[in-house]
Amino acid sequence: MAIREEIRELARRFMEEEVPFNRFLGMRITHLDAGEANMEIPFRDELVGDPFRPALHGGVISALLDTCGGAAALTTLDSLEDRASTVDLRVDYLRPGRKETLVAEARVVRAGNRVAVVQLSAFHPGDRERPVATGVGVYNMRRKGEGVQP
Amino acid sequence: MAIREEIRELARRFMEEEVPFNRFLGMRITHLDAGEANMEIPFRDELVGDPFRPALHGGVISALLDTCGGAAALTTLDSLEDRASTVDLRVDYLRPGRKETLVAEARVVRAGNRVAVVQLSAFHPGDRERPVATGVGVYNMRRKGEGVQP
Amino acid sequence: MAIREEIRELARRFMEEEVPFNRFLGMRITHLDAGEANMEIPFRDELVGDPFRPALHGGVISALLDTCGGAAALTTLDSLEDRASTVDLRVDYLRPGRKETLVAEARVVRAGNRVAVVQLSAFHPGDRERPVATGVGVYNMRRKGEGVQP
Amino acid sequence: MAIREEIRELARRFMEEEVPFNRFLGMRITHLDAGEANMEIPFRDELVGDPFRPALHGGVISALLDTCGGAAALTTLDSLEDRASTVDLRVDYLRPGRKETLVAEARVVRAGNRVAVVQLSAFHPGDRERPVATGVGVYNMRRKGEGVQP
Repeated sequence: MAIREEIRELARRFMEEEVPFNRFLGMRITHLDAGEANMEIPFRDELVGDPFRPALHGGVISALLDTCGGAAALTTLDSLEDRASTVDLRVDYLRPGRKETLVAEARVVRAGNRVAVVQLSAFHPGDRERPVATGVGVYNMRRKGEGVQP
Repeated sequence: MAIREEIRELARRFMEEEVPFNRFLGMRITHLDAGEANMEIPFRDELVGDPFRPALHGGVISALLDTCGGAAALTTLDSLEDRASTVDLRVDYLRPGRKETLVAEARVVRAGNRVAVVQLSAFHPGDRERPVATGVGVYNMRRKGEGVQP
Repeated sequence: MAIREEIRELARRFMEEEVPFNRFLGMRITHLDAGEANMEIPFRDELVGDPFRPALHGGVISALLDTCGGAAALTTLDSLEDRASTVDLRVDYLRPGRKETLVAEARVVRAGNRVAVVQLSAFHPGDRERPVATGVGVYNMRRKGEGVQP
Repeated sequence: MAIREEIRELARRFMEEEVPFNRFLGMRITHLDAGEANMEIPFRDELVGDPFRPALHGGVISALLDTCGGAAALTTLDSLEDRASTVDLRVDYLRPGRKETLVAEARVVRAGNRVAVVQLSAFHPGDRERPVATGVGVYNMRRKGEGVQP
């Protein structure tokens, strides 16, 4: 199911420009549809975690997966004023991340009124079958006017 | 059990100065002992993930927890040339992170030849009993000369 | 905060007698209060998973932790007709379980309208400081009349 | 890559007949190959966890996933005397399990000398695309003669 272009543009602008940490890491949304999001971070030297191999920092990978999962969860909400916040995140690190663009792919596998479960994968361009990491994020769906959960 | 001051200083220098992403986020080691590590990130505006509340980005929290867990795992190894790499990380986000220093505490609960399991907690100074997030990291212990696991 | 004795008795009867799998494994509730539950399974030969060591089966441990976490989550609801269902469960197996009674302890660390997060620990009587396993369960809170989440 | 029929038969007999809890739940191996295992549990009334819906107990699902993941991990070892023990298990419960046979599918996504990471899925026959649960297991690989990790 497609979402409207206007929504996609608003979401893109918010995620890329108005979330300070996303901007700090240089995250970009490359795909957004109902229950789906792809994001990426172009490589830069500050993202290295293991200077010997060298390899991307696990924190870069988990931050991108968490954010991409949140973007996918958001597409299942009705209003741009609704919000999704992460309840828990699990990341399995399968291979060292190379000094290249890192792509994340998120697919909602359970979408409810209160909770969304999103499967996550991080890989390098052209190497989707050999993921750097996979994971699952669980998001709390908060509709406008409901207030904040403790 | 105490570790030698010399080891502590080498570990501190490596983690704070030679890991580019740790340096980029401004991470500091504040405690390091056998099976234990505390680290922190001073607040700066780039670390915000939710500009409305505002609240720290989940990626900042998971990056700090992952790194602090790795530091604690390293203290169970014999040589400075041994390495610990994250196998998996789970983070439970319990409360929004405020615009303050974020502290992480890591305690090794299982230390083996091959695998270390580390319990993790992130909180603000003076508010340890109300953690922003808790988690668990599993680390692969790699001794010098053993080669890299696929 | 204490819960009423009547509620405790109804919950005990339901969990021990009316949930077939709990009964099959011989689970008992030994403590139930607001945000807290303890349960246990007496040892029997059918619970062994590793006949060589011998050690309890991981599935026995995860089943007890999941159920005990659900019982703790239930105590945060208002009505006996409300329900808690598991969204996700993580278990870290720290030591082999011995051929003894297995105790689980569950403490709610986040209780919201929609989601409860519960910390879990499994151990043998008198050996709480050396847990067989620790874990975290996330539960979906469903109030009477709200219908079932997909 | 195929494994020898003799190995498959020995593994099947061990998992189905010599592990008491597997036998107690009626687990069967239906597929075993290098890095792969499928197992199933035929339905019986004792496996119900929610007598109202009714639905399978989460503990049945996690026990089957854990065991099936261990079987898949074992196929990456060299000797029948090697062992795999679970380090951690994560299960995401996506849909209620029906009163039917439950099938588990396990695929090794990272196989190392020390650690294997296995992706897991549980579903009903003919309904693989709508899993009851998905998960990930991390297993500690212990070769004969290495001794037991603390």
